[in-house]
Amino acid sequence: MLLPDDPARAFMPYPPVEVPSAPSGPLAGLTFAAKDLFDVAGYPTGGGSPHVLAMSGVKSVSAPAVQLLLDAGARFVGKTHTDELAFSMNGRNAHYGTPVNGGAPDRIPGGSSSGSASAVSNRLCDVALGSDTGGSVRTPASHCGLFGIRPTHGRVSLDRTLALAPSFDTCGYFARDGATFTRVGEVLLGADSASLPDRPRVLLAADAFAMLETEVRGALAGVVQGIEATLGAAELVEAAAPTGFEPLYWAFRRLQGREAWEVDGAIIERFRLPLGPGVAERFAFAREVTDHEVAEARELRASLTARLDALLGTDAVLILPTMPDVAPSLTDSEASLDAYRNRAINILCLSGLAGTPQVTVPLATRLGAPLGLSLMGPRGSDLSLVRLAARVAEAVGRPEARAA
Amino acid sequence: MLLPDDPARAFMPYPPVEVPSAPSGPLAGLTFAAKDLFDVAGYPTGGGSPHVLAMSGVKSVSAPAVQLLLDAGARFVGKTHTDELAFSMNGRNAHYGTPVNGGAPDRIPGGSSSGSASAVSNRLCDVALGSDTGGSVRTPASHCGLFGIRPTHGRVSLDRTLALAPSFDTCGYFARDGATFTRVGEVLLGADSASLPDRPRVLLAADAFAMLETEVRGALAGVVQGIEATLGAAELVEAAAPTGFEPLYWAFRRLQGREAWEVDGAIIERFRLPLGPGVAERFAFAREVTDHEVAEARELRASLTARLDALLGTDAVLILPTMPDVAPSLTDSEASLDAYRNRAINILCLSGLAGTPQVTVPLATRLGAPLGLSLMGPRGSDLSLVRLAARVAEAVGRPEARAA
Repeated sequence: MLLPDDPARAFMPYPPVEVPSAPSGPLAGLTFAAKDLFDVAGYPTGGGSPHVLAMSGVKSVSAPAVQLLLDAGARFVGKTHTDELAFSMNGRNAHYGTPVNGGAPDRIPGGSSSGSASAVSNRLCDVALGSDTGGSVRTPASHCGLFGIRPTHGRVSLDRTLALAPSFDTCGYFARDGATFTRVGEVLLGADSASLPDRPRVLLAADAFAMLETEVRGALAGVVQGIEATLGAAELVEAAAPTGFEPLYWAFRRLQGREAWEVDGAIIERFRLPLGPGVAERFAFAREVTDHEVAEARELRASLTARLDALLGTDAVLILPTMPDVAPSLTDSEASLDAYRNRAINILCLSGLAGTPQVTVPLATRLGAPLGLSLMGPRGSDLSLVRLAARVAEAVGRPEARAA
Repeated sequence: MLLPDDPARAFMPYPPVEVPSAPSGPLAGLTFAAKDLFDVAGYPTGGGSPHVLAMSGVKSVSAPAVQLLLDAGARFVGKTHTDELAFSMNGRNAHYGTPVNGGAPDRIPGGSSSGSASAVSNRLCDVALGSDTGGSVRTPASHCGLFGIRPTHGRVSLDRTLALAPSFDTCGYFARDGATFTRVGEVLLGADSASLPDRPRVLLAADAFAMLETEVRGALAGVVQGIEATLGAAELVEAAAPTGFEPLYWAFRRLQGREAWEVDGAIIERFRLPLGPGVAERFAFAREVTDHEVAEARELRASLTARLDALLGTDAVLILPTMPDVAPSLTDSEASLDAYRNRAINILCLSGLAGTPQVTVPLATRLGAPLGLSLMGPRGSDLSLVRLAARVAEAVGRPEARAA
C-alpha cells in the first residue's frame, strides 16, 4: 500500500532488471538512479515522452556515465522521471505526473531532472545522474535541498544519452551531503585539467544578486557572509556586463531553441506529438528562431565566454544565486511557472552559455523550503569546485543546523 | 518525408520486430494490425497509457486472437493506437495524438480502437484487431467507413489482452470489404453455436431510430429499404422497452465504470496518472459508483438480456443505427464530444449489456462522411451474422456506388 504522495513516483515504473555493478570500488555501498535520458542496459530510454519511449526498444549497453558508477561499485536502483524531452525546469510532466520534492513536498521538484532530485531528496537512493542544459540539475537541486553540479561542458560523456541542445548539454548529478558529492565527483568527473587553489580568489556576481527580491537576498546574505569568513572577502563583479542579462537570456533561449528543434523537431512534426503545457510553446518558439538570431546569439555567447574566462582566470570562484527563489507551489499556474522560469534563465544562462562548471549548495532556506547558492569555477576545475562546495557547506553549516 | 497528416500515425512507433506467421493458410496474403491492448511477441503492450507502456516490458507470447491470424497465414504489420486505457470512443489520445480517419480526414476516427480503424481505412493493412467494450469497434468502424464486429461476449479469447471492463470486453476486428470481413471471421470467430437461417426474421429497432435526428434517419432510410428488399420487410420493435434507453444508459455506465475502476483504479491512484481530457472525468465517475447502483444495474442488465434473447430467438436479425451520426469534427470541443458520446451509448449499450453480437456495415454517408448501419444477431450467431452483413452490403451496394 502506497501513500497518496508516494515518493516512489520519482521512478519510471519499468519492470526491474538486474544491472551488474562491481563488487567493490570507491562507490561501493552507494545506490544510484539515472534520469531516463541515459541508456541503462536492460531498460528502454523514454526521455519523458511517450513517443520516445515507444520508439526506444530495450537498450543493451549503458551510457558511459552510468557505467562509470557501476564499475566503481555503486548499485543501480532505477530510472527517474524527466520533464518531457527535458525541455522544462518544472518537473510537471503532462504524461507521467510530478515527482515529490523531498525538501518541500507542497512545491514542485524542479526539472528537468525532476525524478533524480526527487529520489535523492526522498532518500530513495544516495546519488542520481541528471543532465543540465539550461538548469536541469541546478534548478531541482536548489528546489529540493541538494548538492548538484553542472560540469564543464564536455567534461562527462553524454554518449548513449538523449540530447536536448548538444552545445549546452552536460551530465551532472545530485547528492545530499558534501562527502557523497565529492566521492561521486572523484569517479564521474575524473582529474581536473585546471584545479582551483586551496585559497581561490572570491568573486560575487553583484548584478545577479541585484535581480533578486529583497527577501531572497536576505535569505542568502548570511550564507554569503559565511563563505567570505571561510574563503576571504569577495570582490563584487558584474557577471553579465557589458550587455546586462536580457540579451544573454535571449541568446541562450535562441541557441538552445535552435538546437532543440534540430534534435526533436522531426519527431514532433512527424507524429504531431501532443506536447504538454509549456513544452509545446517552447518548441513552437524554437521552431521560429532565425539564422540571423542564431548568428547574433553566437557572437554574444563568444564574448560572454571570453569575459567569464578572463574574470575567473584559473584561480577564482564566483558566488551567484542558483535560482530567483525557492520552488514554486505545486498549484501554481503554468503562466506563473513560465514567468519564474524566465527570471531563472537570466541567472542560469551564464554557465550554460560559457560552458563553465557550476555547483549549487543547499545552504539556505526561505518559507520553510530549500534554497541553493552557487559557486562557478574556471572551466576544467570541476572536481576542486566540488571539494570546495563540500568544504564551504561544512564551514557554513547546513541551514537546519544554523536554524537550530 | 511524411505528409502533415501522415496515415502512418495509426501505429505505435515501436521498433519493428519480425513476428512469424504461417507460410500458407486461409488468410495468406492478408496483412493485419492489432490494437495496442493485445500482446504481440516481441513488443510491449501500452494500452494508450505512457505508464502502462513503461510497466509492460517486452512480451514473449502473443494473445490468442493475434496468434489465430498468424497461424492462418496473415502477416502482422504493427500495433495500433488506442484511446488511453481504452476508455473513450473519440480516438484523441492526449499522450499519443489522433490517428487519421481514412474515410473522413477532417473528422475524428472514433475509438477506442482508433489506430486499427485508421490503419484499415487508410489501406495500411487489410484487417485489424480491436476490442469493443462499449462501442470501441463499432464506433470507429462507422466513423471510418468499415465493416466491424462486436462478437458475442466471450466468443473470442481476450487472454493476454489488457482489460477495460471484463464483463463487457470483446475482441472484434475491422475490414474494408465483405469478402475479407468474412474470411477473417471464419478464422477468428470459429464455427457458430447458433447460426442464423438464410432467411432470418427481420426486426427494426424503432425506438433507436426514433432517437436520431431527421437528417440522419433520412441518410439511413434508403439503406433500410435496401435491406428489406433483400431480406424481407422488417417488423418494428422497441429494443429498449419497457424502460426506454436512459436507465440502460446508466446501467451500462455504472457497471462499466465499476469494472474499469477495479481494473485500473490501483495504478491510477498509485501513480496519480495524469489522464487525458474525458478519460480523467470518466474514471472519476467510475470511482464513485455505489454498490447499490451496481446491484440495480445488474437487475436491469439481466432483464434487457432476457428480453433481447426473446426478441431475437435463434432466427432474427435486428436492424439498428450504429451511431447517432457521422464522426464529429477534429476540432470539436471535449464537451461536444462528450455529449455525442452519451447519445451514442444509449444505442451502443444494447449489445454491450446483453452480450449479443453486432456488426456495423458501411452502407451510408452523410455530409460526405461514412455512416454505418448495424445488424444484431442472437448470441452465438456471429459468423452467420458476418456473412449476412457481407450479403447485405453486396445487395444494397456501397454508398459510393449508389451515389454514382
